[in-house]
Amino acid sequence: MTDESRIWTAALVVVGDEILSGRTQDKNIAQIATWLGVQGIRLREVRVVPDDMDAIIEAVNALRQRNDYLFTTGGIGPTHDDITVDAVAAALGVDVVIHPKARAILEAYYAPRGGLNEARLRMARVPDGADLIENRVSGAPGIRIGNVFLMAGVPAITAQMLDGLTGQLEGGLPLLSATVGCWVAESEIADLLRETEKAFEGCQIGSYPFFREGRTGANFVIRSVSAETLGAVAKALEDGLVALGRTPVAGGI
Amino acid sequence: MTDESRIWTAALVVVGDEILSGRTQDKNIAQIATWLGVQGIRLREVRVVPDDMDAIIEAVNALRQRNDYLFTTGGIGPTHDDITVDAVAAALGVDVVIHPKARAILEAYYAPRGGLNEARLRMARVPDGADLIENRVSGAPGIRIGNVFLMAGVPAITAQMLDGLTGQLEGGLPLLSATVGCWVAESEIADLLRETEKAFEGCQIGSYPFFREGRTGANFVIRSVSAETLGAVAKALEDGLVALGRTPVAGGI
Repeated sequence: MTDESRIWTAALVVVGDEILSGRTQDKNIAQIATWLGVQGIRLREVRVVPDDMDAIIEAVNALRQRNDYLFTTGGIGPTHDDITVDAVAAALGVDVVIHPKARAILEAYYAPRGGLNEARLRMARVPDGADLIENRVSGAPGIRIGNVFLMAGVPAITAQMLDGLTGQLEGGLPLLSATVGCWVAESEIADLLRETEKAFEGCQIGSYPFFREGRTGANFVIRSVSAETLGAVAKALEDGLVALGRTPVAGGI
Repeated sequence: MTDESRIWTAALVVVGDEILSGRTQDKNIAQIATWLGVQGIRLREVRVVPDDMDAIIEAVNALRQRNDYLFTTGGIGPTHDDITVDAVAAALGVDVVIHPKARAILEAYYAPRGGLNEARLRMARVPDGADLIENRVSGAPGIRIGNVFLMAGVPAITAQMLDGLTGQLEGGLPLLSATVGCWVAESEIADLLRETEKAFEGCQIGSYPFFREGRTGANFVIRSVSAETLGAVAKALEDGLVALGRTPVAGGI
């Protein structure tokens, strides 16, 4: 029997000078977070680190030990700046080896594209003991070793790898969410939010203000593993807003 | 005289359940990274942590000690889930106090908007000894204490706060970049990239592949503090691509 109260957690290490320079807007955090949520796994922490061995090793070792799963994105391609496989192997204290199935996949993929060369063969390198996560876009597979999952930096390729992993990882109850929006300054209804959260066990309410069309508004995001609690909290919040003369917008603004 | 070889670094702690749930696509990392680059400061590491005291305290203490500057985004608003001020104060071992000037700013801002209430007054709370970073959008100021800068979670407000800080922080030489694009699989020219990077001291070349319109291409981003080096590396890379029968695209694809 599953322990329904067990919370499964994951962390993510984004390897990427291009994110830290501001050149590239990261899309993998939101993509992986959303996918994990559906698997019943909570993304607990993200670190963005440069393409630097020591920085990757430190982050991998800090996070893999205190989470059920650790994902990395970036740095598994064929060029000199792709060092994630080496860093993860060093973090785990294992050698880097050529994975025979990865080599076969790459040989087949590159046969009509000029054949394997030394750079392309780099993408068959894995930490010793690793399994592959296949992807249909580019041939080059992702890598799983223990609780560490190495994914691509290109979001479309990571999407394919996540697709291949769907349903494979043990998780708990998914954290459900419901949103109530309102054209109100959050500072006018802070008491209502705090008291509503307090009145229901096992729920959290996040308040996300915005400025749009010259007006102040906010979305209140309720989270709980219980659909029943979620509905009750949303109703209490909506009733509370109406009692204050405000108009709640179910689903958010 | 400035030591031109000194590299100034910053780290960023993004406080946000909404980023970790996948609900919100973060925009502050790219915004702050770009702004720091212009100030001659390199963003060295980012951590995204939940709205949780212990998690924020751990990240703040780890990163403020090994970087010249530490920024945080999120959690400085008026609601119950805004705990960044308390966490930073705890990390620094100081009390939380009401900043008189912040209080005055909020009083003036909210005078025509229903006046100060307890929730709004929360936004005048600062770690003892802090200075304010003003913003013209919402009244509520950002906070500076020592080398730690507390910014808003809403990107438009953080943009205002960064504007107020422009030119205030000591930095080094900005890291310049130039991009060369090419419709080529990066795995076909990995040797050229590695050898070009090796041939020029003080430059890095990042390779960023993409799939677009059914074709494989990549952008090669060259970084250096020297405009002269940058130009020489770009030329060497372009010449190398031409020698391999490829067509470089200056500025990237």
